[in-house]
Amino acid sequence: METLKIIKIGGNIIDDSKALALFLSQFAKLEGLKLLVHGGGKLATQMAQKMNVPVQMNEGRRITDEATLDIITMVYAGKINKNIVAQLQANNCNAIGFSGADGNAIVSVKRPTQSIDYGFVGDVKQVNTNTLEVLLNNNVTPVFCAITHDENGQLLNTNADTIASELAIGFAKHFKTELYYCFEKNGVLRDISDDDSVVEKINTKTYQTLINDGIIADGMLPKLNNCFHAINNNVDKVCIGKPSMLFTTNTTYTTIQK
Amino acid sequence: METLKIIKIGGNIIDDSKALALFLSQFAKLEGLKLLVHGGGKLATQMAQKMNVPVQMNEGRRITDEATLDIITMVYAGKINKNIVAQLQANNCNAIGFSGADGNAIVSVKRPTQSIDYGFVGDVKQVNTNTLEVLLNNNVTPVFCAITHDENGQLLNTNADTIASELAIGFAKHFKTELYYCFEKNGVLRDISDDDSVVEKINTKTYQTLINDGIIADGMLPKLNNCFHAINNNVDKVCIGKPSMLFTTNTTYTTIQK
Repeated sequence: METLKIIKIGGNIIDDSKALALFLSQFAKLEGLKLLVHGGGKLATQMAQKMNVPVQMNEGRRITDEATLDIITMVYAGKINKNIVAQLQANNCNAIGFSGADGNAIVSVKRPTQSIDYGFVGDVKQVNTNTLEVLLNNNVTPVFCAITHDENGQLLNTNADTIASELAIGFAKHFKTELYYCFEKNGVLRDISDDDSVVEKINTKTYQTLINDGIIADGMLPKLNNCFHAINNNVDKVCIGKPSMLFTTNTTYTTIQK
Repeated sequence: METLKIIKIGGNIIDDSKALALFLSQFAKLEGLKLLVHGGGKLATQMAQKMNVPVQMNEGRRITDEATLDIITMVYAGKINKNIVAQLQANNCNAIGFSGADGNAIVSVKRPTQSIDYGFVGDVKQVNTNTLEVLLNNNVTPVFCAITHDENGQLLNTNADTIASELAIGFAKHFKTELYYCFEKNGVLRDISDDDSVVEKINTKTYQTLINDGIIADGMLPKLNNCFHAINNNVDKVCIGKPSMLFTTNTTYTTIQK
């Protein structure tokens, strides 16, 4: 089976136009099949402030009312996605931007209201890879923003890490899929203040120990859960680290194992 | 050759959510290959006002500075395009949203500064239909917003009527292409106040007479120029009228002939 690299970049790259330009020029040169998933960064929050739409958060998660969904759709699917696509084209990488609505690629379900109503937030229900495979086989690189749809015309805000892992799982039937989470650190760190303290391998057993020891906590927990969800569902390789893990051989990063 | 319908809708439909929903439900049912091009409507102007970005016009044409280009990209490629795609999916039409950067579909050149600097406005240089044809042959319906790129990473604002005619010309090598401009009137009218005064056929000769008589003027001139550009470059059929011209047989509209 051919290998497909699914690469997720987050706010730290999106928010820094020089870092983004460098990343995209390197990403464009990566050989083989590849797919990019991007987060939103600070732009959506800045836009909400400019438009006097209050940003509502609960335990670090954004509450997406209708005005906020509009802003997210404009910023993620419009400004960020199209500028990334244009920059990839400038680097001779034939990209096409996607939300989950495009090609019916990612169907989600609006999260049910429990103690908190998160609003227009979608949990992924189904990934349809047919059209994407046709494009990949025609040398096209899909670029996903973190928006899905419910098949009834409603767009939904969805976590970008989850989109990356669900796509990797969805493609695992037809490709050897590799999932790379790029972020600002060298990987999962034993000591958050020491970028050289990378835990190079984490498996299900050591994961539990790292949680118990308080080394994996807060925002790293959902990221690691996405990693294990992928590795336990036929994704071949799952890594966390700086983008350099993709482009150079002598870097240290975290690899997730079953 | 197979027939491809290229259909352009403008602000009057975009700005009216009920009219848009009805149009999309009918468009979804249209048999055969099809492609949708949408304008922007009033949303971009409203957004610019909310964000205190001054709207600069010259002879009815928008001057696109950097802040305005951002807004257009957000509104056209983000909010409008993705909501149309999601609604088409809800109507079982497998749509994918496009700007000219996606799939390198439409390459344009920034309009040179003469007496007026229109800013980030692009004149179409080249249409690349390869990737789009792969998608059309896989039962995908492309949905274009009116944004192109210069292949150097710069997005450019481009007239939606022009995008529709250039796409129709680009596809004419491989398909029998039909171009439909949908707008708020029944077609080109002899008497602007009488929607029953449709000029049913216009050819190059009668076009000149209609201009001389002042019947075609103002905003209709560039639209008609796009029509003749298409019909003179291997597009099989070019029509102007209400969307009903696509869906019912007993309507009157304007057909452009060589």
